[in-house]
Amino acid sequence: MITGKNYIGNTLAGKGIKTFKTFNPQSNKENKTVFIEATVEEINEAVELALLAFKKYSKVSGAEKAAFLDTIADEILNLGEELIQTYCSETGLPEGRANGERGRMVGQLRSFAELVKEGSWVEATIDTAQPDRKPLPKSDLRKMMIPLGPVVVFGASNFAFAFSTAGGDTAAALAAGCPVIVKSHPMHSGTGELVSSAIIKAAEKTGMPNGVFSNLNGSSTDVGVNLVKHPGVKAVGFTGSINGGRALFDIASQRKEPIPVFAEMGSVNPVVILPEALKSNGSYWAKTYAGSVTLGAGQFCTNPGLLLGMKSDALTDFINKLSKEIIKIEPSVMLHPNIVGAYEKNKKRALSQSGLTVTATIDIDVKPNYGKQVITTVEGKTFLENTTLHQEVFGPFSMVVQCEDVKQLENVILALEGQLTGTVISNTEELSNYSVIIDALQNRVGRVIFNGVPTGVEVCPAMQHGGPYPASTDSRFTAVGVHSIKRWVRPFSYQDWPQELLPQELKDENPLGILREVNGKLELKK
Amino acid sequence: MITGKNYIGNTLAGKGIKTFKTFNPQSNKENKTVFIEATVEEINEAVELALLAFKKYSKVSGAEKAAFLDTIADEILNLGEELIQTYCSETGLPEGRANGERGRMVGQLRSFAELVKEGSWVEATIDTAQPDRKPLPKSDLRKMMIPLGPVVVFGASNFAFAFSTAGGDTAAALAAGCPVIVKSHPMHSGTGELVSSAIIKAAEKTGMPNGVFSNLNGSSTDVGVNLVKHPGVKAVGFTGSINGGRALFDIASQRKEPIPVFAEMGSVNPVVILPEALKSNGSYWAKTYAGSVTLGAGQFCTNPGLLLGMKSDALTDFINKLSKEIIKIEPSVMLHPNIVGAYEKNKKRALSQSGLTVTATIDIDVKPNYGKQVITTVEGKTFLENTTLHQEVFGPFSMVVQCEDVKQLENVILALEGQLTGTVISNTEELSNYSVIIDALQNRVGRVIFNGVPTGVEVCPAMQHGGPYPASTDSRFTAVGVHSIKRWVRPFSYQDWPQELLPQELKDENPLGILREVNGKLELKK
Repeated sequence: MITGKNYIGNTLAGKGIKTFKTFNPQSNKENKTVFIEATVEEINEAVELALLAFKKYSKVSGAEKAAFLDTIADEILNLGEELIQTYCSETGLPEGRANGERGRMVGQLRSFAELVKEGSWVEATIDTAQPDRKPLPKSDLRKMMIPLGPVVVFGASNFAFAFSTAGGDTAAALAAGCPVIVKSHPMHSGTGELVSSAIIKAAEKTGMPNGVFSNLNGSSTDVGVNLVKHPGVKAVGFTGSINGGRALFDIASQRKEPIPVFAEMGSVNPVVILPEALKSNGSYWAKTYAGSVTLGAGQFCTNPGLLLGMKSDALTDFINKLSKEIIKIEPSVMLHPNIVGAYEKNKKRALSQSGLTVTATIDIDVKPNYGKQVITTVEGKTFLENTTLHQEVFGPFSMVVQCEDVKQLENVILALEGQLTGTVISNTEELSNYSVIIDALQNRVGRVIFNGVPTGVEVCPAMQHGGPYPASTDSRFTAVGVHSIKRWVRPFSYQDWPQELLPQELKDENPLGILREVNGKLELKK
Repeated sequence: MITGKNYIGNTLAGKGIKTFKTFNPQSNKENKTVFIEATVEEINEAVELALLAFKKYSKVSGAEKAAFLDTIADEILNLGEELIQTYCSETGLPEGRANGERGRMVGQLRSFAELVKEGSWVEATIDTAQPDRKPLPKSDLRKMMIPLGPVVVFGASNFAFAFSTAGGDTAAALAAGCPVIVKSHPMHSGTGELVSSAIIKAAEKTGMPNGVFSNLNGSSTDVGVNLVKHPGVKAVGFTGSINGGRALFDIASQRKEPIPVFAEMGSVNPVVILPEALKSNGSYWAKTYAGSVTLGAGQFCTNPGLLLGMKSDALTDFINKLSKEIIKIEPSVMLHPNIVGAYEKNKKRALSQSGLTVTATIDIDVKPNYGKQVITTVEGKTFLENTTLHQEVFGPFSMVVQCEDVKQLENVILALEGQLTGTVISNTEELSNYSVIIDALQNRVGRVIFNGVPTGVEVCPAMQHGGPYPASTDSRFTAVGVHSIKRWVRPFSYQDWPQELLPQELKDENPLGILREVNGKLELKK
């Protein structure tokens, strides 16, 4: 049952007076539960509990953390149909998507469980003593990764499962040994509370300390701001808009003790289409690209907002085909009236720029909260001169930039801000003629894709989800895949430390059998 | 020959009108060379050149970068006696130290050369395609570390070799594939120019692009500020004061595109001495600690400014012995009149706090620029109530905090800001009784030391040099050892990328024979 209260550690609490409800965009009605925004007192209590929990949780073994994570996954699945229905009622997304995203969330939790059970992720490094070294003896030094402390995770509007309460940030932080305080996204607080109940149940079942997890509601920005300012909080994970992420980054940077914020923010995910591919396969790419632009009503962080090509009859033909393909697709419901409102506003801003031509739009009336897809086109020169055109329009909107030549195409890419992804659509033979284009693209993005579309972020170790600012606030980390654990840990060295007091990972006999670097050489499992 | 000019890439330039000289603290006289501060135009030119160089240098192979780094080491050694004499004349440090630190600088360059020649440091990760996977096929994804772009390195006042022009930050950034622009420290700009000449010579000999390295002079803060604000700069390395490091961090965080700053700053490096060790070995530790406090006139970042003990006759006896030992040591010259001035000012600030007792001081007159060591003591309660006493006094100054009991000792540790190191001096048997102390200490520092002193930072992979703020601005990285390369790189993924266009590190056949994670399994060299 959803109570509308906050989880302060294992306890449900709701002393506040500010309340709000979630909204069903499909039925265009508010949902019933009244959610109570966390008070300053409750926020402080959650952080204090997390600090206490950290003392114990930071020392919990990998096997125990794995049991905790696996049990979270089990308890989420145990929530069954209620969870799926709540998700759908708070997002407007279909059951198929709900099931798929739940699978991804559960899969992420299990992959982090596997990672910490195996144990090599701590990057254990040992340099043994050389007492007889001249002119000075060498000490024994042993290093491994340890958790930072309490982490605040902000739920994302567009992924109520995979990037929210028990999503990638939370799974990675709990795996690292950090207690987590979630600032639940106000658009899906019911989903958040249910998932939180599963986490709390798992924490109790596996004997984790009270405070290892808290879930706070809030529809105003106060809750998040107070959390990020709290001296007990040691890192922040965020997925959302550039404005939101940057505001948190600024608050965190201006603290007396600055803390790292990993914010995964906006991206227009440029797709470059080269001449031979246009000629030989234009119809296929028009259809595929139309699907990518409208997938999930264009509400993916990897949605392609920009297609870059060089002027030719083939490009004109492609634009025509793309425009025809995209209007064949039924508009779909967006997550929330606020998201639709922002989409309409940003679309209007873009469409009001001079030189932008609309080549496809939906003329018919649609149901409330449905997002109408749009394809636009603009000259390379116009795009270069007007940076407003570079900004993301979150939703099913895409712009085709028609460049004069390779040089202008390169300049367009160089003028872009940092991106999550960059795609090249090309016949393999022509590729070698465009190395300047590929070089320029690589320098602006976190991931390059060949002959595909950027939507669809595989969860695997080789995935990089992040990129130069503003794709993320620190391009040196990923938000997806097990390596995302590195955001929440720091290296720690023991010098001449007694064997019996060393953590298992660093003892001479390698009791966990993990990969270690010993005196400069990698040693695989015994 | 030292010209006083800046290296803008391979070219010596000095169009500016602001000039300054370095100072020999030993002879108490200015050195002769007139250094010309870099102009805004020269700064911009250096960054533009670095950006151009980055296009080529980011693709240079590990073997070629290794040759460059090794040649830098060779060319530094080729500078011979002139370099050593310049170093001594600009720092007042003895030849023995100059030779030792040069050895360390050269050793660091060679260890990074080895790292990139071997190649596994890029963390190559491969997840191969599963075209038949249901419900959706899986793409081929391959990830590795790539360089961030031009890096600005600030020379440190206290290590003209190992943490300056060709020191750890520069070696790590060049190894990563990032061009480097050094803001030379104005106290040893002659040393900086000589080392820069060796780097330029090595770049030319090994065919590295012009702009891979620049060296800018400046005695005002303008040069550094302009560099950090320049949109072409992608990361910053700094070693120095909290004020300086924090100012750069703030500038970098407030840029339109924020960039990472790794600043290694202040630390008082607390040393906890436990009762049994005091009783059985007090004399030894008094002498050893006195040596650590005065080593290099107390100008090491790991200098122990704080000794924490519990009140007892043994502690009183220890303080007496420490006070006697430390005044036996000859005061030594500090790096610069400004450093002596800051030392005297900060010492005065500390000594003016009520409750602080001086137990050892040097009464005799010393030569100009010599730093007189001081031992002080204070009650635990007083220390807890006055955070001014927590601040570093950079120089041969240390404070013994006498705590009432274990609880107060724990509270003192918990009240400290982040530190580079924390030391425990103890008989092994008693250690298990003080786990709260050890836990508290571990949570505040980057490295713990057992029965040693914190001075002496071994350069090896297992070293962590860095720690919670303000020891460093990002505790997730180290400033010393080959792992410090991670500060200057970001993960980058290729999705379904054609084999022939993949970098060597990610090709199927593993031509470099490096360690890779393939489909979740680690594969050692073929």
